[in-house]
Order: sequence, then structure tokens, then C-alpha cells
Amino acid sequence: MEQAILEGVMQLLEDGVPLAELSIERIARTAGVGKATIYRRWSGKEELFVDVLRAAEPPDPELPGTSMRDDLIVILESLRQRGLVSRSSAILHNVYVQMKSSPRIWAAYHAGVVAPRRVLMLDVLRRGQRDGELRPDIDLDLANDMFVGAMLVRTVMRPDADLPEGLAEQIVDITLAGLRPVSSTVL
Amino acid sequence: MEQAILEGVMQLLEDGVPLAELSIERIARTAGVGKATIYRRWSGKEELFVDVLRAAEPPDPELPGTSMRDDLIVILESLRQRGLVSRSSAILHNVYVQMKSSPRIWAAYHAGVVAPRRVLMLDVLRRGQRDGELRPDIDLDLANDMFVGAMLVRTVMRPDADLPEGLAEQIVDITLAGLRPVSSTVL
Repeated sequence: MEQAILEGVMQLLEDGVPLAELSIERIARTAGVGKATIYRRWSGKEELFVDVLRAAEPPDPELPGTSMRDDLIVILESLRQRGLVSRSSAILHNVYVQMKSSPRIWAAYHAGVVAPRRVLMLDVLRRGQRDGELRPDIDLDLANDMFVGAMLVRTVMRPDADLPEGLAEQIVDITLAGLRPVSSTVL
Repeated sequence: MEQAILEGVMQLLEDGVPLAELSIERIARTAGVGKATIYRRWSGKEELFVDVLRAAEPPDPELPGTSMRDDLIVILESLRQRGLVSRSSAILHNVYVQMKSSPRIWAAYHAGVVAPRRVLMLDVLRRGQRDGELRPDIDLDLANDMFVGAMLVRTVMRPDADLPEGLAEQIVDITLAGLRPVSSTVL
């Protein structure tokens, strides 16, 4: 049932219906269910919509937990995968763009998807700092933005940029090692 | 004259007119000039609009040219300043959001404003690599994304994030030095 509803919304989006015109009524009609069925599961269009996106995006990865570096590479690789999907799927790309001009849907997506990912990332960094993989004096919030920043610039802001295999590992290792020439890394 | 037209557009935006409804005709009427006057200076609404944004944003900075590090800090500081302006100006913020859902205006802004900034940044990095301030084996495109990534995550993607004074310097120095604990920076 839930699956049919999510697919119904995806179908409407594929048919080119703008986000703003997707009403619960129309979704119910497309999925062949009553409005009450939808409202039993979701409190509103925003929440339903976040689940549609979640179903369309690659699932969040399992972290290996073997080291901070390994976990960070898996997280950045999943950002890269989402970037690739968003590039290959015109619908998904279009939905992201529309979502950003709808403050309520953006807020729901942020609370339901983006914020939990950030919490997970900060956990990984906290463990890494505890285990001596991360400078002890570094602010975790800033460390987070530095690890994910380069990948997000490429996936979100520069839709024409390369997303080659191995990019996640490269970004993590360069961020850990720094960009100074080796001869001057003495601090 | 040019100034009056740019201010006319800003006035319309302040009055809450959506970007999509800003026609050359309406802009001409607001500025008290003929449409031909506008078309003599700008080839279309997109190009005019990019100049409106350019006038509203803090001007691009002069680079000191004393070192790659100094230049990078000035560039990142100007990103921070633009982030602060976009936060304090509801109109400007609103315009950025609308712009992203208008592919033609976004393309014009990208070609006229974003792309030249990227070229400038790559020049700074190229000089730095030549002068031994940047690892010789690093891809400049990737280095660029790493320096600007963390700042852009904060200014563009996390509108609630702190943009404290000194952030530009902090990001540049950490990106140069890396996030590994000092004891393990031996490569």
C-alpha cells in the first residue's frame, strides 16, 4: 500500500506535474486509495514527499566501523552515488530544484534526511578524535564541513563537474594530510 | 541611467514581485526609461539581472598577491561576506532561491559571475603550486573545491551555520595543514 502511494507520486512527477500542484487528493486518485489512507501514514504532503525522495535516492550506507577514515570514505562515496543518481535522473534533479524553492518541503527533507546524516557524520568524527585519527584541537562542526564540502561542491553546485571513482577516498586522504608540500608540513 | 535601471529592478524585488514576472517592459516603466534604452545596454532580462545581483553583492576583492595563502584568505573572506549579506538581506536571499529555479538566469549568473571567480581562484592556486606553497601532485580543480567547499557549505547550504570572523583564515590553514594529528603527519 505504502509502496503504491510512493510510486503514484513518482509517476505524477515523471508525468511532469510540478511539485506545487501535487495535492493529497491527486496522489490518492493516482494510487487508487482514499485520502484517509494517506493521512493515516503521513501527516501531510511534505512528509509524504520526503519519503518519496528517500525511496528514490540510494539507501544510506552501512558503516564498516573499522576506522574513521573507512567510515568517512563510505559516507563520501554515498554522497557521490547520490550525485550520480541525481545527474542521471532528470526527474530527481528537477525535484531537488523545485524543493529548494518550497520552504516547507525543504524543511521537512532537512529534518528527515539531511539532519540525521549530519548527526551520523559527527558521531564518526567524534570517535575518530577519541581514537587519535583526528586532530584533538579541531572543531567537529568545521571538520564535518571540510570533509563533505569538496564533495558537495561537485555534486550539488557544479552539476558538470567530474565525479570519478575513487574521489571519496581522495578527498578524505587529502583532507587528512593537508595541501602543503611535504617538506613544509613541520608545524 | 544604468544605475536608475538597476535600482528600479531592486525596487520591484523589494516590493515582492517574483523574478518570473519581471519583464523588460515593467522594469522600463519603473525606471522611467524606454525599453530601447534597456536593450541598448543589456541583451535581455537575464543579463540585466546578473548586473543587479552584482551591484547588490559586495564587490569582488583586490588580491594582495603576497602569497597564495594571503590571496586564498581574501577570496574565502569575500565568500563569507557575501554569505553574511545574503543572510541579512531577505530580498537577496529570496532572489538567489528563485534564480536557482530559473535555468536561464542561473546560466547567465554562472557565466558572468561564478565562472570568472573560479578562473581567478585557479590562477591563485597555479601560482601557489609554482611557488611551492601547494603540493605539486595535487589536481588544481580538486584543490579549489577543497578550499572553497567548507565555506560554501556554510554560506549556501547551511543558512543557520555560524560565519564567525576568522573563519576564512581557519579554513585555509586547516586545509593546508590537514586534519591528521601532528604525530602522524609523517607521510
